[in-house]
Amino acid sequence: MAKVLAINAGSSTLKWKLFEMPAETVVAEGMIDRLGLSDSVFSAKYGDGQKFKMTRDIKTHDLAATVLLEELKDLGIISRFEEITGIGHRVVAGGEAFKDSVVITEQTLAHIEALAEYAPLHNPTQAYYIRVFQKLLPRVIQVAVFDTSLFATMPQENYLYSIPYEYYQKYGARKYGAHGTSHRYVSQRAAELLGKPLSELKMITLHLGSGSSITAFDHGQAVDTSMGFTPLAGITMATRAGDIDVSLLPYLMRKLQITDMTAMIDILNHKSGLLGLSKLSPDQRDLEQAAPTNELAQQALAIFVNRVVKYVGSYVATMNGLDALVFTAGSGENGIALRENIVDQLHYFGVKLDPEQNHVRGKERIISTADSAVTALLVPTNEELMIARDAMRLGHNNTAL
Amino acid sequence: MAKVLAINAGSSTLKWKLFEMPAETVVAEGMIDRLGLSDSVFSAKYGDGQKFKMTRDIKTHDLAATVLLEELKDLGIISRFEEITGIGHRVVAGGEAFKDSVVITEQTLAHIEALAEYAPLHNPTQAYYIRVFQKLLPRVIQVAVFDTSLFATMPQENYLYSIPYEYYQKYGARKYGAHGTSHRYVSQRAAELLGKPLSELKMITLHLGSGSSITAFDHGQAVDTSMGFTPLAGITMATRAGDIDVSLLPYLMRKLQITDMTAMIDILNHKSGLLGLSKLSPDQRDLEQAAPTNELAQQALAIFVNRVVKYVGSYVATMNGLDALVFTAGSGENGIALRENIVDQLHYFGVKLDPEQNHVRGKERIISTADSAVTALLVPTNEELMIARDAMRLGHNNTAL
Repeated sequence: MAKVLAINAGSSTLKWKLFEMPAETVVAEGMIDRLGLSDSVFSAKYGDGQKFKMTRDIKTHDLAATVLLEELKDLGIISRFEEITGIGHRVVAGGEAFKDSVVITEQTLAHIEALAEYAPLHNPTQAYYIRVFQKLLPRVIQVAVFDTSLFATMPQENYLYSIPYEYYQKYGARKYGAHGTSHRYVSQRAAELLGKPLSELKMITLHLGSGSSITAFDHGQAVDTSMGFTPLAGITMATRAGDIDVSLLPYLMRKLQITDMTAMIDILNHKSGLLGLSKLSPDQRDLEQAAPTNELAQQALAIFVNRVVKYVGSYVATMNGLDALVFTAGSGENGIALRENIVDQLHYFGVKLDPEQNHVRGKERIISTADSAVTALLVPTNEELMIARDAMRLGHNNTAL
Repeated sequence: MAKVLAINAGSSTLKWKLFEMPAETVVAEGMIDRLGLSDSVFSAKYGDGQKFKMTRDIKTHDLAATVLLEELKDLGIISRFEEITGIGHRVVAGGEAFKDSVVITEQTLAHIEALAEYAPLHNPTQAYYIRVFQKLLPRVIQVAVFDTSLFATMPQENYLYSIPYEYYQKYGARKYGAHGTSHRYVSQRAAELLGKPLSELKMITLHLGSGSSITAFDHGQAVDTSMGFTPLAGITMATRAGDIDVSLLPYLMRKLQITDMTAMIDILNHKSGLLGLSKLSPDQRDLEQAAPTNELAQQALAIFVNRVVKYVGSYVATMNGLDALVFTAGSGENGIALRENIVDQLHYFGVKLDPEQNHVRGKERIISTADSAVTALLVPTNEELMIARDAMRLGHNNTAL
């Protein structure tokens, strides 16, 4: 048996999950919050429901990794570091080169660092953690799992923008997508639940969380996705605008007397979406609660559903059909009314929700009726498991490295 | 009988068409090109195939209008100015206020001028011509026909962007659409050809020209359209990018070392679309010719079709069905292969093209098979006729003004 650590590093958080593989049992999980600040918080769940939390200044990524490994031992989750045989790291941007997860070598790591421009807030930090763990556990095989690699299979007509072609050739200006690990996990799991190989299905996966994206799978291949060059594009999100007319940028900057474009893009990333529309909250649950007496909350929810429905329609058109529609992530897993509202507007495509089956939060199941032309499913996402699986799959094949 | 002049003024062109109403006969038509420059060209077609062309310096809009009226008389197209009983003007931006065409009063004209910010290259010129004709033909009723007013019926969830709501409230940042006069004309004409009232149909109209847009009509109301706050958004166009991730703007400006955002937006308006993708031409015909031996030309055409198909799919989803699909404008009317390629990818929705009926350019007709679940039509657009009709309809009801 092997223990595999899945690491999801952000700029100020470090999420981790330790799996017993190949059994896929979660041994422990937790996070470090307020990283880089004083009063950082380390928390862990492990064993049969045990919980641990402590506050401590964790000002560097080096210290974060050290604290994590030490606490794993101190809490008795592992007895020796050697039990950890693989580490899988979420990496946000894989550019065009990484069409699958990859075993870390000096070369692949340098490449990840070189892709910093595509994810300036993420790739450098994630690469840095890989280096830290190389120092702390030099014998452990590490694997990078990219948010984008799933989309390497997209046909050119879906990933190219209608801008001068040399901007793609010279600067890599194209659609890369995001949330790939989540879409990959739920698509595979949905196919299992349907008892059919993914390669025989037309499937649309709806990752509806704080960031939201929609992916079309045509016979096993991700052929299109709603996020774009960056995760700003696509459907309405909690605080991100999704698709807008690019001409709004200069117009709004003039109106708002903003001269720094970064500040305007920041508004589109952090003050827009459901929050901007509702003037209330980025959280679907807050909006649902407010909706009966708050028109803007109602409107924001309607717009969210509208954008989902439009993307689904566009993918049904390009795939010429649909077999399965899969809901996942925070709102996708827990939004009973949200799923109802979306499916309600898709009845032309023959999706019929089973209200009883749909009346559930976060449980894996088919939520459409037996006679529904399209099967709708709820599949809680599990990116960490996907990362651990990739670490096993690739680590096992590369023990020589 | 009344003669109505339809005026379509751009910054350096003045297109005009004179109708005998209510018979809707075209008495004469033509344009002034290279307006504001030396060697401006005045051209006219009239009578039974007569043509006239002359070169002359027409440096001001005042002179352009004067030349037009004088030539109408000199060429014997009219014998007295009094024969002209109405003038209809195309006006690009009607903002939120103008939900229909409108008779010109000092108030409406001032309002059109105030909307300059939404169409800085068009509204001021178009308003100026209205003033010029007021001086030249003070007794004639003038009517403004807006590109946007058709879309005044759109529901809020389709015209709002997912940006802070106060940007809509304070600055009118929303989807306005464009090509409304064309979509209005062909939707009405298609309904006539189908022998059914527009109010009983779900229809999608494809205005595929140099600028391209797609409009969804649900039971007679325009409910959604692909152009946005400006005509830059939507599907791939001849030289316009259509929808892109707004994050590309700062990224490309950095890469191209462009510091002026206007210059970047200019590239997206004038160097992108089919031209940018193909590196060859903005013209579908050139690309079709080149396609067999030119991969980029092929790719550009495929991307154009792809974007059309996606918008159609998204509107079928939100309307929950489709009765009629209408092709119009340059490429829509003349692109035999283009229509084939689009309909080919829509067979999930039950559109079946009749290859024989489709083998035609610019002729009004049904081009789908008798058993097609969705009727596809070719309807040459006629914005000028729509303008003349509005001038009649509103002028007639407002003779008191």
